[in-house]
Amino acid sequence: MKSNSSALSTPLCGIIPPLVTPLLDRDTLDVAGLERLIEHVLDGGVHGLFILGTTGEAPSLSHRLRYELIERVCGQVKGRVPLLVGITDTCFTESVNTADKAKAAGADAAVLAPPYYFPAGQPELLEYLEHLAPELALPLFLYNMPSHVKIVFEPETVRAAARIDGVVGMKDSSGNMAYFRRIQALLADRPDFSLLMGHEELLAEAVLLGAHGGVCGGGNILPKLYVDLYDAAGSKDLKTTETLHNKVMQISTTLYHVGHYGSSYLKGLKCALSCMGICSDFLAEPFHRFRHAEREVIRRRLEALGILQKD
Amino acid sequence: MKSNSSALSTPLCGIIPPLVTPLLDRDTLDVAGLERLIEHVLDGGVHGLFILGTTGEAPSLSHRLRYELIERVCGQVKGRVPLLVGITDTCFTESVNTADKAKAAGADAAVLAPPYYFPAGQPELLEYLEHLAPELALPLFLYNMPSHVKIVFEPETVRAAARIDGVVGMKDSSGNMAYFRRIQALLADRPDFSLLMGHEELLAEAVLLGAHGGVCGGGNILPKLYVDLYDAAGSKDLKTTETLHNKVMQISTTLYHVGHYGSSYLKGLKCALSCMGICSDFLAEPFHRFRHAEREVIRRRLEALGILQKD
Amino acid sequence: MKSNSSALSTPLCGIIPPLVTPLLDRDTLDVAGLERLIEHVLDGGVHGLFILGTTGEAPSLSHRLRYELIERVCGQVKGRVPLLVGITDTCFTESVNTADKAKAAGADAAVLAPPYYFPAGQPELLEYLEHLAPELALPLFLYNMPSHVKIVFEPETVRAAARIDGVVGMKDSSGNMAYFRRIQALLADRPDFSLLMGHEELLAEAVLLGAHGGVCGGGNILPKLYVDLYDAAGSKDLKTTETLHNKVMQISTTLYHVGHYGSSYLKGLKCALSCMGICSDFLAEPFHRFRHAEREVIRRRLEALGILQKD
Amino acid sequence: MKSNSSALSTPLCGIIPPLVTPLLDRDTLDVAGLERLIEHVLDGGVHGLFILGTTGEAPSLSHRLRYELIERVCGQVKGRVPLLVGITDTCFTESVNTADKAKAAGADAAVLAPPYYFPAGQPELLEYLEHLAPELALPLFLYNMPSHVKIVFEPETVRAAARIDGVVGMKDSSGNMAYFRRIQALLADRPDFSLLMGHEELLAEAVLLGAHGGVCGGGNILPKLYVDLYDAAGSKDLKTTETLHNKVMQISTTLYHVGHYGSSYLKGLKCALSCMGICSDFLAEPFHRFRHAEREVIRRRLEALGILQKD
Repeated sequence: MKSNSSALSTPLCGIIPPLVTPLLDRDTLDVAGLERLIEHVLDGGVHGLFILGTTGEAPSLSHRLRYELIERVCGQVKGRVPLLVGITDTCFTESVNTADKAKAAGADAAVLAPPYYFPAGQPELLEYLEHLAPELALPLFLYNMPSHVKIVFEPETVRAAARIDGVVGMKDSSGNMAYFRRIQALLADRPDFSLLMGHEELLAEAVLLGAHGGVCGGGNILPKLYVDLYDAAGSKDLKTTETLHNKVMQISTTLYHVGHYGSSYLKGLKCALSCMGICSDFLAEPFHRFRHAEREVIRRRLEALGILQKD
Repeated sequence: MKSNSSALSTPLCGIIPPLVTPLLDRDTLDVAGLERLIEHVLDGGVHGLFILGTTGEAPSLSHRLRYELIERVCGQVKGRVPLLVGITDTCFTESVNTADKAKAAGADAAVLAPPYYFPAGQPELLEYLEHLAPELALPLFLYNMPSHVKIVFEPETVRAAARIDGVVGMKDSSGNMAYFRRIQALLADRPDFSLLMGHEELLAEAVLLGAHGGVCGGGNILPKLYVDLYDAAGSKDLKTTETLHNKVMQISTTLYHVGHYGSSYLKGLKCALSCMGICSDFLAEPFHRFRHAEREVIRRRLEALGILQKD
Repeated sequence: MKSNSSALSTPLCGIIPPLVTPLLDRDTLDVAGLERLIEHVLDGGVHGLFILGTTGEAPSLSHRLRYELIERVCGQVKGRVPLLVGITDTCFTESVNTADKAKAAGADAAVLAPPYYFPAGQPELLEYLEHLAPELALPLFLYNMPSHVKIVFEPETVRAAARIDGVVGMKDSSGNMAYFRRIQALLADRPDFSLLMGHEELLAEAVLLGAHGGVCGGGNILPKLYVDLYDAAGSKDLKTTETLHNKVMQISTTLYHVGHYGSSYLKGLKCALSCMGICSDFLAEPFHRFRHAEREVIRRRLEALGILQKD
Repeated sequence: MKSNSSALSTPLCGIIPPLVTPLLDRDTLDVAGLERLIEHVLDGGVHGLFILGTTGEAPSLSHRLRYELIERVCGQVKGRVPLLVGITDTCFTESVNTADKAKAAGADAAVLAPPYYFPAGQPELLEYLEHLAPELALPLFLYNMPSHVKIVFEPETVRAAARIDGVVGMKDSSGNMAYFRRIQALLADRPDFSLLMGHEELLAEAVLLGAHGGVCGGGNILPKLYVDLYDAAGSKDLKTTETLHNKVMQISTTLYHVGHYGSSYLKGLKCALSCMGICSDFLAEPFHRFRHAEREVIRRRLEALGILQKD
């Protein structure tokens, strides 16, 4: 690592929502929406922000727009919470470039899934991390996301990678909880290594049994709910945990599964934020925003959840 | 359902270990080992037994041997706990035949994963269940096992299947906890429908947040550990739950990952039972028992875990 | 191999249709239909018959019915052409049993895909073949079918398996022609090893560049077309080859892609045979025959192809 | 399409090698090697060049380097043959940008695989093409590459896409020849639509039965061999076709399968070019060049093939 003046706690703990990227069209930020979204999420008491992840549609955005987003978010957050920036790329050099931009703008950490065009073997993947981490200006979180990048950080690869200078944590979005528990067990001697849950549906149980926090997409909508759930689970208040977990499940089952699976999570999330008046629901290709019928479904469900008032 | 004199509770709860099938060779039961194994597991206080599952190597066993196993296990258990019998088959008629044998021998329920040669679409899968359930002499548990059967019981298919007369529960071995939580949410109005966790590494969290029990392979080795964990999680004793969960993770990480992944769970489990003097470690093709080197690793780890005494 | 009085040529060459299994219901043969089908196909001049393959729905049939089918087909074919019998099974012992029945009834060879529940590694798969071949009463063809059995016979595994006594050929249904060409190249020193193409759409090119024949589902409908195509390609008559290949493509594109993919090939094939008055179109679960609308599509297309006369 | 002054034939025919990208390090072109490589390949009489494909490691290269490569290649080829440029990207805007650079530099066509991070459904994929094609300054070839991008251009999607103005052909690298034949059949009424084979092992048969040409990686090493094979197959000279096909298979089996599969094709190809003195064998992450042992294997095999003289 070239330098590291990060204010990250060790390990990083809490709720770090993966910010959606508000767009007016495929290469234009919804700047006002972005500002409202950031303040909305920070008002909920979150412990960090993660931009340019899967929820942020990073791979669908031009590098120019990614850089603009980094600068705008850093400029507005101004260190109020740690800022994590996704640098996943099929190209090593572009990952380094994005990390450089993030460092220069004042971000605190980088987040990286494996390169996802050429399927690397695990030894190649480890070597890749060994080459990359020293080139990065920021501490690095691994991002396990096999549904989209096709390869997994195998548990033994994570154990080895956790010894690389600058690698400080991992976000697991596999949904495979047996994998997550195995990683935890293999890193039992590394209390400084942050293990974050990428599925909000699993935040409660992850934290109850020792995870450090979660990267919860629903935190764009109701940040305080996830913060409260994290607090309840972290303090082993099982009753409150169950109550709040059930609310999270209601959001998940009603807002993320409208229309066809795959893109329904992203479409539902952006649609809800649009219905709430926070930001535009435009999605970059290959996806598109919900049409009217699905939007009405989302609106009615937001009303049923008490998030929107009925007309 | 032709009839149902089952003594199953509604919903079925607790620890129901998936019994390994002790073998002397590929078509010969280790009868003495089987008897020892059953008494060993029942002594641990388990709430049921599941034979002819994946852990029981059912697909690798001849139908003749499957029938023999059903009769011997029924004859020995004699109703002390509910007995569940795997009837998964690529052939509808063979599934019915196995259920008939199980019913005649005194078993209490059948367990079925989707047919796994021809990949059925979800509507075909639902129709298959609608045809099958009325032909079965026993109540039916669905068995979600996508790693081996290639197709998943999609959540909406489970919700529809849960309305079929005779379908009483589900065992999920996907490891995908987001899926499990979604099933729970979709069946929130069905407290009679039993949801069982197929991964012992996830037993604690599954039960903490409402699952009815677990089908835990490690229950062949240390049945009481899993029963105690189930009791602790069920009574919301989070501290004991954590302690016992960590013991389960130790078993999983040390015994199930020796040698190459895939068959390492089955080989490790049977090897451990052999080292403990309970039954033979023979595995049916396409697998084979551990060779000497791996067996020594397992033996040393059993000693380290306190399961075997050191020489 | 226990014995081998087979009349198989070395290597086996020509068109060996994979016979559909005519059914009246899920466990009852359409005996009259089967007889008509066999004579229809033999009249076309085919060089062999293959029963109990994927097209024959073998995994969906009870072992009892499989044995009945073997006896009936052997009894009717009476050695007029070589008879190959599918023995693929998740259970080693059942594969041996089926081969024994086939040998006793007078069949000439067995055909085997890898066991398809537990995913064997390649060394395990080779060891499995080394154990199995000596137990079989018949020469053995490997059957590469990764879409349904999940694992592939890797090229190096095929090369090693081809040295096992009794292993005499391979049918490749992967559709992956680069794989097929690689197998050919690796076995260039084994002119006695039969390489058969499992996709009729690829029969022409396979034979033009050295394959020994094909296992063509369309041979149930128009056996002579495939025999003629094989003859043309084998004699390097490129012009006739192109003409007949285009006819095969017409059959494939019009009859095998009605309705949803996956089962549409099987449904279309049995539906066409039913429309032609040859045998019943009943399919065993998890599939079902075409409903009226799809059947009418098939009927009209058979008319357009000149296979059925217009009303 | 904004404009189209392309000199492409309709349909594009012949051998269009996918050029490797000679690199000195991960973000530096081997300029001298690139010049030698281009002249070497053009000397072989090829009918076009394709840069920034999978063989060109495009996803591993920075956009800056991609643009530099486009300019250098255009500047050297100077219209001697049509130049196709890969514009595949997870981001719509970056694809458009790359096409703009290619057009400005004088390239003749763009080549595009589906975006490969978010898995689009087929309707989404078709809509994506309908949005993209009009934004491109160049005619467009579809690139079917499911092993790397996870989704396939389904046959019906190809048929619909072929009607979009500016979509002029397709390169299929699936290896699935049944798919290729089905596409051919569906586009039988579109003789202007170019169908190119992406696997050199299948060039002979593809062209014998009507494909328009091939994108052959081995064309970097021995361009004339592939041109001669194309000529022989195109003129239906079956004997010469077989002889040259066998030479292609020798190259494939001896040079592309050293070491671990996956990256072995790319490593072998670049290593061979380095041994031949044409260009550097550096590979961008996540891969790396062969180490000494594998390089010696490649060198000896090049000698055995008569491509290199023995020391």
